[in-house]
Amino acid sequence: MVGPEIERLMQLLSRLPGLGPRSARRVALHLVEKRETLLLPLATALAAVGETVKTCAVCGNFDSIDPCSICADSRRDPSILCVVEGVGSLWAMERTGVFSGRYHVLGGLLSALDGIGPDDLGLPRLKARLADGAVREVVLATPATVEGQTTAHYIAEFLATSGIIVSALAHGVPVGGELDYLDDGTISAALRARRSY
Amino acid sequence: MVGPEIERLMQLLSRLPGLGPRSARRVALHLVEKRETLLLPLATALAAVGETVKTCAVCGNFDSIDPCSICADSRRDPSILCVVEGVGSLWAMERTGVFSGRYHVLGGLLSALDGIGPDDLGLPRLKARLADGAVREVVLATPATVEGQTTAHYIAEFLATSGIIVSALAHGVPVGGELDYLDDGTISAALRARRSY
Repeated sequence: MVGPEIERLMQLLSRLPGLGPRSARRVALHLVEKRETLLLPLATALAAVGETVKTCAVCGNFDSIDPCSICADSRRDPSILCVVEGVGSLWAMERTGVFSGRYHVLGGLLSALDGIGPDDLGLPRLKARLADGAVREVVLATPATVEGQTTAHYIAEFLATSGIIVSALAHGVPVGGELDYLDDGTISAALRARRSY
Repeated sequence: MVGPEIERLMQLLSRLPGLGPRSARRVALHLVEKRETLLLPLATALAAVGETVKTCAVCGNFDSIDPCSICADSRRDPSILCVVEGVGSLWAMERTGVFSGRYHVLGGLLSALDGIGPDDLGLPRLKARLADGAVREVVLATPATVEGQTTAHYIAEFLATSGIIVSALAHGVPVGGELDYLDDGTISAALRARRSY
């Protein structure tokens, strides 16, 4: 009914995170209506990202240069390395503007269920990166989920004899968080890690 | 921090209906991660729509052929014409599979607030289309909003002396609708239009 081109566009749009068939239809219609100001620029932007963006061979970040702009930035502290699950976590860390070291993107988490073992996570790559002794501290910033914490634990074990300081993000009450809406695990963790006032 | 190409992509994605800056970021990351299977096909699909899809000169529908596949389909009844606000409404009508006539897309609704008058709605185009006497009935399917109903009223007036039957979609309880959640206007309309059982 809408022609094969629009049909194909809707089908691809419905595979984007957060978009179902209905919202994909709405987005497709909006794009056709805004052909000059949105559809064509978006096609160009996608092609540009497809052509230029690559995975940094050092840390696993996405950037148009390799090594990425973070790895290439001499103002970033080379002695502190933050280990994250994926580029989304790296972006989240960068938005805070607080971390001045460099990153290591695992590209996943250990998962017995999904059959993801240590070799799938580029841990040999991490080991190679740490071999020159330049990194003094590894900050584990994997998510506070079972798989995230299992992965963090595995990496901590793996670095136990390396002489490198291993730290991890603190657990606690999120800033702005109401106790009523927090799960028991978070409250227990915040209580255990309480600080003098 | 993410490079100008990804930045530009996020900015365009955030202009899509239903996507804010956060979901645009999530979608952009997903696209970069699925470069071969999603990003490049989507760029191609958008370019294909941009190149092939045009506005039907007869009815205002979007299609890769002009006149569109509905206007060109000889099995569609040429004597009944459904007037809709936009192509989204046309798609919604077509999904029902119940309407066998043809369409006229207004491309908007009368709106004093937005300064949209009769001349902006292609009503001269509608008049020209009706001039040959082939259309026996015009079904007004504009939305059940103030602007939609004002537009329907205007078109009905405009066709009053033409000898063409003018009808409109019925108001009433939506199928599957609970009375508790319906507004008073809908319930009143459904009561006024009650039918013998």
